[in-house]
Amino acid sequence: MFLHTSKLQFEAKPDRPDALYARKLQELIGGTWGEMTVTMQYLFQGWNCRMEGKYKDLIMDVATEEIGHVEMLSTMVARLLEGAPADTTASMVDKDPVVAAIIGGMDPQQAIVSGGGPTLADSNGVPWNGRYIVASGNLMADFRANVAAEAQGRLQTARLYNMTDDQGVRDMLRFNLARDTAHQNMWLAAIEELQEDGLEGPISPSALFDEEHSEHAGTIWHTSDGTEGPKGRWASGPTPDGMHEFSYLMEPVALGDKASAPKPDPLLYATSPANLGLIEKAIRKLT
Amino acid sequence: MFLHTSKLQFEAKPDRPDALYARKLQELIGGTWGEMTVTMQYLFQGWNCRMEGKYKDLIMDVATEEIGHVEMLSTMVARLLEGAPADTTASMVDKDPVVAAIIGGMDPQQAIVSGGGPTLADSNGVPWNGRYIVASGNLMADFRANVAAEAQGRLQTARLYNMTDDQGVRDMLRFNLARDTAHQNMWLAAIEELQEDGLEGPISPSALFDEEHSEHAGTIWHTSDGTEGPKGRWASGPTPDGMHEFSYLMEPVALGDKASAPKPDPLLYATSPANLGLIEKAIRKLT
Amino acid sequence: MFLHTSKLQFEAKPDRPDALYARKLQELIGGTWGEMTVTMQYLFQGWNCRMEGKYKDLIMDVATEEIGHVEMLSTMVARLLEGAPADTTASMVDKDPVVAAIIGGMDPQQAIVSGGGPTLADSNGVPWNGRYIVASGNLMADFRANVAAEAQGRLQTARLYNMTDDQGVRDMLRFNLARDTAHQNMWLAAIEELQEDGLEGPISPSALFDEEHSEHAGTIWHTSDGTEGPKGRWASGPTPDGMHEFSYLMEPVALGDKASAPKPDPLLYATSPANLGLIEKAIRKLT
Amino acid sequence: MFLHTSKLQFEAKPDRPDALYARKLQELIGGTWGEMTVTMQYLFQGWNCRMEGKYKDLIMDVATEEIGHVEMLSTMVARLLEGAPADTTASMVDKDPVVAAIIGGMDPQQAIVSGGGPTLADSNGVPWNGRYIVASGNLMADFRANVAAEAQGRLQTARLYNMTDDQGVRDMLRFNLARDTAHQNMWLAAIEELQEDGLEGPISPSALFDEEHSEHAGTIWHTSDGTEGPKGRWASGPTPDGMHEFSYLMEPVALGDKASAPKPDPLLYATSPANLGLIEKAIRKLT
Amino acid sequence: MFLHTSKLQFEAKPDRPDALYARKLQELIGGTWGEMTVTMQYLFQGWNCRMEGKYKDLIMDVATEEIGHVEMLSTMVARLLEGAPADTTASMVDKDPVVAAIIGGMDPQQAIVSGGGPTLADSNGVPWNGRYIVASGNLMADFRANVAAEAQGRLQTARLYNMTDDQGVRDMLRFNLARDTAHQNMWLAAIEELQEDGLEGPISPSALFDEEHSEHAGTIWHTSDGTEGPKGRWASGPTPDGMHEFSYLMEPVALGDKASAPKPDPLLYATSPANLGLIEKAIRKLT
Amino acid sequence: MFLHTSKLQFEAKPDRPDALYARKLQELIGGTWGEMTVTMQYLFQGWNCRMEGKYKDLIMDVATEEIGHVEMLSTMVARLLEGAPADTTASMVDKDPVVAAIIGGMDPQQAIVSGGGPTLADSNGVPWNGRYIVASGNLMADFRANVAAEAQGRLQTARLYNMTDDQGVRDMLRFNLARDTAHQNMWLAAIEELQEDGLEGPISPSALFDEEHSEHAGTIWHTSDGTEGPKGRWASGPTPDGMHEFSYLMEPVALGDKASAPKPDPLLYATSPANLGLIEKAIRKLT
Repeated sequence: MFLHTSKLQFEAKPDRPDALYARKLQELIGGTWGEMTVTMQYLFQGWNCRMEGKYKDLIMDVATEEIGHVEMLSTMVARLLEGAPADTTASMVDKDPVVAAIIGGMDPQQAIVSGGGPTLADSNGVPWNGRYIVASGNLMADFRANVAAEAQGRLQTARLYNMTDDQGVRDMLRFNLARDTAHQNMWLAAIEELQEDGLEGPISPSALFDEEHSEHAGTIWHTSDGTEGPKGRWASGPTPDGMHEFSYLMEPVALGDKASAPKPDPLLYATSPANLGLIEKAIRKLT
Repeated sequence: MFLHTSKLQFEAKPDRPDALYARKLQELIGGTWGEMTVTMQYLFQGWNCRMEGKYKDLIMDVATEEIGHVEMLSTMVARLLEGAPADTTASMVDKDPVVAAIIGGMDPQQAIVSGGGPTLADSNGVPWNGRYIVASGNLMADFRANVAAEAQGRLQTARLYNMTDDQGVRDMLRFNLARDTAHQNMWLAAIEELQEDGLEGPISPSALFDEEHSEHAGTIWHTSDGTEGPKGRWASGPTPDGMHEFSYLMEPVALGDKASAPKPDPLLYATSPANLGLIEKAIRKLT
Repeated sequence: MFLHTSKLQFEAKPDRPDALYARKLQELIGGTWGEMTVTMQYLFQGWNCRMEGKYKDLIMDVATEEIGHVEMLSTMVARLLEGAPADTTASMVDKDPVVAAIIGGMDPQQAIVSGGGPTLADSNGVPWNGRYIVASGNLMADFRANVAAEAQGRLQTARLYNMTDDQGVRDMLRFNLARDTAHQNMWLAAIEELQEDGLEGPISPSALFDEEHSEHAGTIWHTSDGTEGPKGRWASGPTPDGMHEFSYLMEPVALGDKASAPKPDPLLYATSPANLGLIEKAIRKLT
Repeated sequence: MFLHTSKLQFEAKPDRPDALYARKLQELIGGTWGEMTVTMQYLFQGWNCRMEGKYKDLIMDVATEEIGHVEMLSTMVARLLEGAPADTTASMVDKDPVVAAIIGGMDPQQAIVSGGGPTLADSNGVPWNGRYIVASGNLMADFRANVAAEAQGRLQTARLYNMTDDQGVRDMLRFNLARDTAHQNMWLAAIEELQEDGLEGPISPSALFDEEHSEHAGTIWHTSDGTEGPKGRWASGPTPDGMHEFSYLMEPVALGDKASAPKPDPLLYATSPANLGLIEKAIRKLT
Repeated sequence: MFLHTSKLQFEAKPDRPDALYARKLQELIGGTWGEMTVTMQYLFQGWNCRMEGKYKDLIMDVATEEIGHVEMLSTMVARLLEGAPADTTASMVDKDPVVAAIIGGMDPQQAIVSGGGPTLADSNGVPWNGRYIVASGNLMADFRANVAAEAQGRLQTARLYNMTDDQGVRDMLRFNLARDTAHQNMWLAAIEELQEDGLEGPISPSALFDEEHSEHAGTIWHTSDGTEGPKGRWASGPTPDGMHEFSYLMEPVALGDKASAPKPDPLLYATSPANLGLIEKAIRKLT
Repeated sequence: MFLHTSKLQFEAKPDRPDALYARKLQELIGGTWGEMTVTMQYLFQGWNCRMEGKYKDLIMDVATEEIGHVEMLSTMVARLLEGAPADTTASMVDKDPVVAAIIGGMDPQQAIVSGGGPTLADSNGVPWNGRYIVASGNLMADFRANVAAEAQGRLQTARLYNMTDDQGVRDMLRFNLARDTAHQNMWLAAIEELQEDGLEGPISPSALFDEEHSEHAGTIWHTSDGTEGPKGRWASGPTPDGMHEFSYLMEPVALGDKASAPKPDPLLYATSPANLGLIEKAIRKLT
């Protein structure tokens, strides 16, 4: 069960409205890598965690914080939209090209649908959806996804930081950047801890290593003609899991047979030689 | 530009058809973490890579291999569907409960839409879409996403491996498992190399560390009542980036003000005290 | 079965083209609360209605009218797009900032995909989809949804009305506004009638009142720290359904146990203490 | 900012697992009218509310409660999935038709993707998305949508209640049913209060009544041939808003002109008589 | 403007209910190639047609008919669902494997959401969406899409015809098959007529033939290793447009330069050698 | 299995960057009719082809070429974005209306998400998805869809050609136009060949002609009031399939009965007269 305080985790006050920027900030609310994604990803990971204790408690701590990030960003977007043009478009466009550009560059749904507030969508107006999250039950695989989410999230926040010089907005983003740094560090530490606790190895899942075709577990297939792929650390030497040796397969050969499809079921009407003459017969019958 | 050989990278021959399993395998084709995702993710990362050389060449090698994985799985699905019931449903359902279950559990679109072949969708029939991929230009952030994708991919493959005892299917999955091991190792090695080359640090992006509110870059906020979060390696000591100390904020206090929205624009008709009496007036005017 | 006359239900002639506004009007065609939604919602409600007579006949009357609203708006959009810039972008952008703004603010698909006509999407270009409608068979629940749809629809139309001073566009919107008023009134009247006819009560569905935990059917849980929630009419006194008393639960306590997940299935590879030592063994086995 | 307690708002313990039912329950998590929808709808309405005080505080109280409902349902789904078949499909299907049916009827992603837990999707596996919510800033329009959401939600819960006789599941659903009753009552009371406070009238938005074509604000157009539409309360007498008289337009006539599109832009290549002869010329030129 | 008669264009009465088949029929309602698609595609093509006269009138005739097809199929689905299991799942599943299979194979939303009626989705429950239609203004391009839609539609109808032996269902499908035959013929005839009228040539659009690189307008690039591609009618001789000669490019060579991306913008944080040493500096600065 | 060369099939070098145009070009990458669609459509058609030989080999040749088109366009988009504004928005907007317009008209995700590269989405930012493709196994139906795809593709390319005068961009589009001409010709030839080989007739599928209600296989229903529909070649004379005569049904009459829904299941709570009095009873019971 959850409780709420109406105070924001960190202040979200722009110095002045900026409708174009309000559109861009949507990416951090409802984008693939926005705050909604980490909120729901961590909540579902917590609820799906099969082990009581430090990992689950950590996940729930961070998940609960993230709901508050959606709140901060939503509040910021509403404030950035204050006074955005909601008036006669055409005459304004003709009179003032800067207003014209703002009208053209705004997210129309922030006005028409939300009445000057945020939507649950990204900077192109595409709605956030539940396929953006993963909660697999395997903590190593999920923490990998969490580091990735915080990394992409900080990257997008950094890009957005450069797109404004509003000191109020920047102040909030300075907090967001720091939280994304903290969370990247935190998931990286948790990945280490999972291994130190002997719960997981570097490769997910820690299973079926004796079933997989291990001769293919360390090779990189050279299927493109760039010549420098084999110059990296991944081209030779031990693999990070300590179980294989890397090698670069310079002239890869297809190991399988022809990619043919099975013979067709007549009731599904695939085109096939078995139909030869059928059409003629059909026409004769009808005419 | 691409070239194609009609031979499969690895054999994809089931011992016998299995229509229920053909539906499940869709997850590896068109699921969020399926082969289509890594194919497109790596292709776009390669095309978006801003540095010629070993990283780009590696990405293109792996990307090109992955197209062939979609091919292997698509071929396997078609073969698993050979002879699947395409006949009168109702009478078969009444006569044979096993056939009934198969009809009920099949992906109906594999028959009705594809005529006995795969679709570009996941195991629930939801189409694959372009928001599943990321190609940010920042290799560290993207390689984090790549490790995550290969980890989730191997995890799902392992689960599917247990759901069949068809030796032909398992043989192909043994190859897939090994490739997912290889690719996890490879992206982990590439992450190390990016750091050794001095191109990226552990936190993405390697920027704005002096702008972010660094007092918030190492804390974990205790917002849920589980008591064991502070027992992990993330609760104290140096952070993996070497730049901060972890600490667990046991009694977090909201730092911001009230989450209020700005005053409404009358043209957008938000409910507000400013409207008091307007309705009465409107009615009087009309009646 | 349907018939069509090529005359519009109401005139849809703008005084002059306005490509920016043509994009905004898409919200009324293919937005969540646009005309497409009410068209399909009412059609499916009519077809799914389990009672011949006045309710079904009313629904079909309104549904059929609504197809004509999509027609009016689609015609209007095409006319607003007449003469929109379809020429060399870059040079025009450099020369004339107003044209630049128009090019930037247009819906590119109205030109590239529809050749100067409407799309079946909203003002951000997101396609209309079938999850926007509901036709549950329960008329009370559905009429509630219909009032909501007409209310949001009239609200969005009113906002769009303020965004133009084109008298031709406004004339059509004056008709749309009136129809949304009529339909809100109508569904409100139909909700009354359902109750007068004894077919439904205010709460949907009129069932399971004796099964539900009635001690929780009148309380409001105070889970946020705002202090004024208990000052409303919903904090005490009889509930609108006449079956309960409202009360405001000021210090709510979780009634359930811990939100734990069941023990993991080893075949699904959740992280769990049962795996302790497995990884080490795996590595030893392989190396 | 939010806080979390790991106790559930209400107990969520099934008597025994039931994998088929676990799929059905997804509708209440990630369906159009599920708990995720009301959670996000209320949160965004609260953040977008332009008036401090009782309405906003109420919305935030209910919003915060709803997050806990997603938690209860997610926990229930994980527990219903305990011990679900994760083993070799084909042989089990052949041996035991009941197991076969369960395998066929399960949500494959609950196993393959979530490892025995819930997804953020509906009972057909379609992901929840942000277009399901509305937060327009106009409280009357939004509360209408809220009543509708709670009505559809209670209706679906009631249907699901009948689909199980597991006493643990039913106990939780009895709580959910009661909360949906409470919330329907609450939003209905809030709709009354908005009018008593003079903030809103029955028709949304309370504006532009003197601009709309009022002769069309009370008529119902008889466009389908059912004869009983005019027998309802909506066919005559005063409208609920007190501003108009209902009437049933028995022989409606289109008021507009022909629905023609404007003349084509040659750069967009619409088919038009202006092209006559062009093709011939093109061929002559090339050959 | 549209009118409606409550009679169906053709009878839609199954001999007996069949809940599994009701799910499959959804493909013809809300699938990519279902009746909803042709309805909306033709309506938007008609509204977007830039030439009054026979083509536009034909399109509107067919479009209006198609709405009635959605009606027939929706009615059929509701009737096929009569008496479908809406009762306690688990116990029924245990007792009767056939009922178990039916419960497993049903579309759960047809019961939970629609109360025994159709949804606006396909046979996997994925909602219909507006990107399935095209109305480009170019009649040749659109009629090509229309033939394709009617062809895929008839193919899917034929497959579904084989999946039932219910004479009532089959009777309706016999009508649908015939309409799809009629409409394929009709669009093929309209394609001929467009050319006879000199309005369009075989290639869309009939323009820019003198601008395109005509040396690439007749070649087929041999990029896969199958050897029989050059044995078809497309390998030599005149092209159908009468403007080129076919040829098969047996050893195709890439004509462009390397696919490199431009140098990165430092504000977007792409990984690049320009960053060398930056990380070290950042760490030193902070520690 | 696939191989890759890092050279582009055709050069993709713009004379200068143009961020607005980079957004528009997305339509050709990830739009419904873009290069991603034909790539995946042809790949899946090839893998699903039930006949070894010339048709399958042709399909795979073209499919493999198309991957390279996605590559060309992605490279072009990255180059067009070079130097696009990534800096402080608000001040630039105020100073320079042209820059303002460009910022407003750019795809924000090309900057924020891709760091100056393409996304896998269309010109409105909606992600490409797997429902855009079809691979039915019936070659006639699929080749019809392929002609349509190439026709719409060339039409959109032609429109985009007019929207730029950058000679580098135009040079690439001249190649694309030519390839779309070649592929339209090729699929039209393949349609002829399928018939000459006796594998398919003009109507898909070539089956069930003796089952369908043939009296409805040549008629066009006059359901709209336009008078010129009967003036076309489709109004009389033999149908293209040679099996029927066209006729125009001037006064069409519905052939079916009333579109009624079956009686409701009490467990699904449809509104019905059977509920009369239930509500009153429920209230009495509780109060």
